[in-house]
Amino acid sequence: MRRRLLRFATGIVLVLRIPIPAMPQQPVQLTPSSSNAEEPSAAIRSVLEAQRDAWNRGDVEAYMDGYERSDQTVFVSGDNVTRGWQTVLDRYKKNYNTREKMGTLTFSDLEITLLGNDAAVVLGRWLLKRTNDEPHGRFTLIFRKTKQGWKIVHDHTSSA
Amino acid sequence: MRRRLLRFATGIVLVLRIPIPAMPQQPVQLTPSSSNAEEPSAAIRSVLEAQRDAWNRGDVEAYMDGYERSDQTVFVSGDNVTRGWQTVLDRYKKNYNTREKMGTLTFSDLEITLLGNDAAVVLGRWLLKRTNDEPHGRFTLIFRKTKQGWKIVHDHTSSA
Repeated sequence: MRRRLLRFATGIVLVLRIPIPAMPQQPVQLTPSSSNAEEPSAAIRSVLEAQRDAWNRGDVEAYMDGYERSDQTVFVSGDNVTRGWQTVLDRYKKNYNTREKMGTLTFSDLEITLLGNDAAVVLGRWLLKRTNDEPHGRFTLIFRKTKQGWKIVHDHTSSA
Repeated sequence: MRRRLLRFATGIVLVLRIPIPAMPQQPVQLTPSSSNAEEPSAAIRSVLEAQRDAWNRGDVEAYMDGYERSDQTVFVSGDNVTRGWQTVLDRYKKNYNTREKMGTLTFSDLEITLLGNDAAVVLGRWLLKRTNDEPHGRFTLIFRKTKQGWKIVHDHTSSA
């Protein structure tokens, strides 16, 4: 029973690592030294919007495309750290094999802060609407600019 | 009663935002492009060690010196975002007015990743030993290099 609970808890944790900005209610913060500062910010928003849309149509692989495909990609939640793009994809596929389980994800209060030319931190709120519950909380994401575009390399998510 | 619980919960949350590396068990990650890459990493470790030591001698103000003294400094925990160095200092002073309440803080599994010349992300574990409980969890910190040295500008902490 304990293992079942643990597995369920892990599943919840993984859902919560779905960062997607829906309606940014706070102004975007841009460092003055960044040239073309709006471009990275717009690119990052697009990644997150694509993740949200992918999740909400039940496409876990497309959702995971927002993360860097690396064994080093880090997912932090509660007292747990999970590493690796493939590991997380596999868990999502296992735990969210129906649309009902995935629910509908929205994001708000998005704040994007550039940390140089190829890194940014994003703070936001997440809300997952499901038939039986509506978990919600905050996320901090580290984005890096890679050859494949802006990708999340570090995701720290917490819930209410 | 609800307000009292809320206030207590806020206090707990604030304790958890005490990032200090004690025994890094994982290799420090340094970006190849950074020159003198070890220097920022060493400086960041020093900040966190100073915070830990300050907390453990009951010196909340010295502990807070690890954070940037700005209204923009962000503290994230659970579903809560608190902003501002002074706001957080005031809460610490109010909620942790005895050494027993503060307990003894340790950090481990510290990973420092530079994000350019003036920014870094730190992942770590925290543990607070107190007489009646031992809360623990993870933190993600964003450091920026300021005129006053490396300072935390964004702290996302979660607990087990």
